Amino acid sequence: MTILKGQDVLSVAQFDKALIGDVFGRARQMRQMVETEGRSDLLKPFVLALIFYEPSTRTASSFIAAMQRLGGGVIPITGGVQFSSVSKGETLGDTMRVLEQYADVIVMRHPEKGAAEQAAAAATVPVINAGDGVGEHPTQALLDLFTIEEELGRIDGLNVAMIGDLRFGRTVHSLTRLLSLYDVNLRFVSPEILRLPLTLMNGVRDAGLNVRECHDVAEVIASADVLYVTRVQKERFSDLAQYDEVKNYYRITPDLMAQAQEKMIVMHPLPRVGEIEPTIDSDPRAAYFRQVRNGMFIRMSLLASVLGATV
Amino acid sequence: MTILKGQDVLSVAQFDKALIGDVFGRARQMRQMVETEGRSDLLKPFVLALIFYEPSTRTASSFIAAMQRLGGGVIPITGGVQFSSVSKGETLGDTMRVLEQYADVIVMRHPEKGAAEQAAAAATVPVINAGDGVGEHPTQALLDLFTIEEELGRIDGLNVAMIGDLRFGRTVHSLTRLLSLYDVNLRFVSPEILRLPLTLMNGVRDAGLNVRECHDVAEVIASADVLYVTRVQKERFSDLAQYDEVKNYYRITPDLMAQAQEKMIVMHPLPRVGEIEPTIDSDPRAAYFRQVRNGMFIRMSLLASVLGATV
Amino acid sequence: MTILKGQDVLSVAQFDKALIGDVFGRARQMRQMVETEGRSDLLKPFVLALIFYEPSTRTASSFIAAMQRLGGGVIPITGGVQFSSVSKGETLGDTMRVLEQYADVIVMRHPEKGAAEQAAAAATVPVINAGDGVGEHPTQALLDLFTIEEELGRIDGLNVAMIGDLRFGRTVHSLTRLLSLYDVNLRFVSPEILRLPLTLMNGVRDAGLNVRECHDVAEVIASADVLYVTRVQKERFSDLAQYDEVKNYYRITPDLMAQAQEKMIVMHPLPRVGEIEPTIDSDPRAAYFRQVRNGMFIRMSLLASVLGATV
Repeated sequence: MTILKGQDVLSVAQFDKALIGDVFGRARQMRQMVETEGRSDLLKPFVLALIFYEPSTRTASSFIAAMQRLGGGVIPITGGVQFSSVSKGETLGDTMRVLEQYADVIVMRHPEKGAAEQAAAAATVPVINAGDGVGEHPTQALLDLFTIEEELGRIDGLNVAMIGDLRFGRTVHSLTRLLSLYDVNLRFVSPEILRLPLTLMNGVRDAGLNVRECHDVAEVIASADVLYVTRVQKERFSDLAQYDEVKNYYRITPDLMAQAQEKMIVMHPLPRVGEIEPTIDSDPRAAYFRQVRNGMFIRMSLLASVLGATV
Repeated sequence: MTILKGQDVLSVAQFDKALIGDVFGRARQMRQMVETEGRSDLLKPFVLALIFYEPSTRTASSFIAAMQRLGGGVIPITGGVQFSSVSKGETLGDTMRVLEQYADVIVMRHPEKGAAEQAAAAATVPVINAGDGVGEHPTQALLDLFTIEEELGRIDGLNVAMIGDLRFGRTVHSLTRLLSLYDVNLRFVSPEILRLPLTLMNGVRDAGLNVRECHDVAEVIASADVLYVTRVQKERFSDLAQYDEVKNYYRITPDLMAQAQEKMIVMHPLPRVGEIEPTIDSDPRAAYFRQVRNGMFIRMSLLASVLGATV
Repeated sequence: MTILKGQDVLSVAQFDKALIGDVFGRARQMRQMVETEGRSDLLKPFVLALIFYEPSTRTASSFIAAMQRLGGGVIPITGGVQFSSVSKGETLGDTMRVLEQYADVIVMRHPEKGAAEQAAAAATVPVINAGDGVGEHPTQALLDLFTIEEELGRIDGLNVAMIGDLRFGRTVHSLTRLLSLYDVNLRFVSPEILRLPLTLMNGVRDAGLNVRECHDVAEVIASADVLYVTRVQKERFSDLAQYDEVKNYYRITPDLMAQAQEKMIVMHPLPRVGEIEPTIDSDPRAAYFRQVRNGMFIRMSLLASVLGATV
């Protein structure tokens, strides 16, 4: 019934349009349930082990909320360095094989790329990757894509502009990969030193998408259906004068929003630190907090799917 | 139905006698439920986000227990410095707007005065202040007042003696404000340098209460219905000889208790460090652990009220 | 009905064969329930306070899972040094008397021997010792013994070999004490400086058991029904040459396993760091992960018992 039953969720590469449609459909059911009943007993028979090797309040909270909204139990292991077994030199594989004795599904965040795959190889229960360093963060990419579809009613045909640090921004990379499955126009707006990596750029070009790069948000604001904003970090610049020169191109202001379409959305993976002025929060096009809420629905959908529970 | 439905709980200043009566009535229902059934499903549809920017095991445990006893879900964020989003520079308002996407009510402790109001202004879900620095700690004041009424059957007409550090003791300040709504006689017993601040003293005088200050517990012990004891910290004294001289006036001993009424109570916000001798714990007049338990009932009452759930 | 109702679980010394049989029978019911339903509502009316004064991810997770599988609430206090009340100088007794206002049972880990007894003396609700320093860790010993009985169908008549650090290994000491109630043959395999303490050795001899000590696993491997492996820590040796000389006697390899019986088991309290080669994990005789799972069942059994809940 559910395609993902018993599967791991490790990478956006696992997802095709059919599977995405399945996950999104279930996420809408979850929203419906939360808005009418608050919580259900769908996952009451199950326990989730949440192990975060690096802190991430937001993602941990989202998964805990997701499991709690579905009536499941949660073992929260979020103390970072305080994992005694880990500090005693236990391998990741052993830790997974221990946790699966207690729990029916494992959600893991880890600072090292590839750790999620390694964990999944050791565990017999489903492992959901909640971010592995510069690697993947598939649930974030899914919630981003879900937000676009929920807010604008479709994905095909949209103009999506990614803004800010496109070089190191993991969420940009994962979302870009997912968008390559659709017929969208991509605009990449960044300082020269923070341009999208070549392999990703070649990927979207190979997928036949209409792609353009530029340095200034002003060039894309009028046509954008989606502005996906990320932080441009001062630390990335060796020449601070260069940073001061460009930083204003990547700050979303009311003046800039005045040039945007009436029906478009501003997204941000959060936390933000000045990239979007707070006055914009009351603009109905500001979708970033609704995006956060969609994260909970997507995670509810994925948890139910890998555990084989149907609404 | 419930006056507090959808409201924040930020300050004792919000509470008048009618509202206090409402909260206390519901707290009694909670005690009744816990003593007969242990836990109920009253708040099953809801999720609480508990975010503590400074550690407080006791208060966090009390709120977690309260929500669990009512069947609700809890997202515990108590890692102190480990809030990754916060450490990345996220504003308090953004953190609140994120948490309310996951949860139906937020309980927050923060080291800075005014933080609770700021949080409540940003959040659309109810925010309960679990202490904001030298500011307020309204649930503590309510549980203190509730304990007096539960133990002695009334509040009006009582002689209440506050003892110890009346200058910096936040619980003393909040309880004093609440007691000003009633017809009580207040006795403030402290070393000279730890007297109740002038503004508070003027407040209770303006409220028409019978007030007296003194330095020695012996002066109030015989007439007191309530001894509210707090810690006198050595660190407050620049002259340690002065501390050594006065410290015994603020230590509750069996000898002192022998001079007290048969029907009176000793309270303490805990933790205690020597202010009350452990031998007194078995005295039926020692109410401080029952006071702790009342805290759970008061928090159950408040959570149910702000979430609009009626027993 | 349940012998342990309202009792503390502090030491293996509390357990005789009848009580062990009772705990194991209930643990089997728990396994049955988990394998068919996942979770039950048996302990729904109850709340567990889990307070860990030193980190232990594995044990904490096991108890949290146990309580969640039985539908109970959990107050997790696992932040180690972050206990604000404790850091403010509160006594262990006061902390217990506070926690019992919120919770129906307390599970505690503490770095100091004797802390569990002290806690239990203060608390009126049952206290379960989850390890007190070099003292006791009774639930570990019970799950070890349970694993032997589950895997091999009996305890009497078995050849049990304990391997590694028998001097400091708390789990070895506790299991040895429990095994003294049965008719087993014990083999103690360790480097000279890590031999079983004399008092324990005298205890098992007084109990009339057949006992032998040696230095090399090869001497016991062929006859062993149970190999209970623990870590030999390099730090224990002042002379590293001595460590290098002996270390291979205490490493379980496929070659060694080839000499073992077909029906025997390898156990380890975990975490392991090289004592058992990972290639052995797929050997059906490798019981250490099943042993972990048994820990959850034993803790479910104990929680249900002390809370007086019967399946």
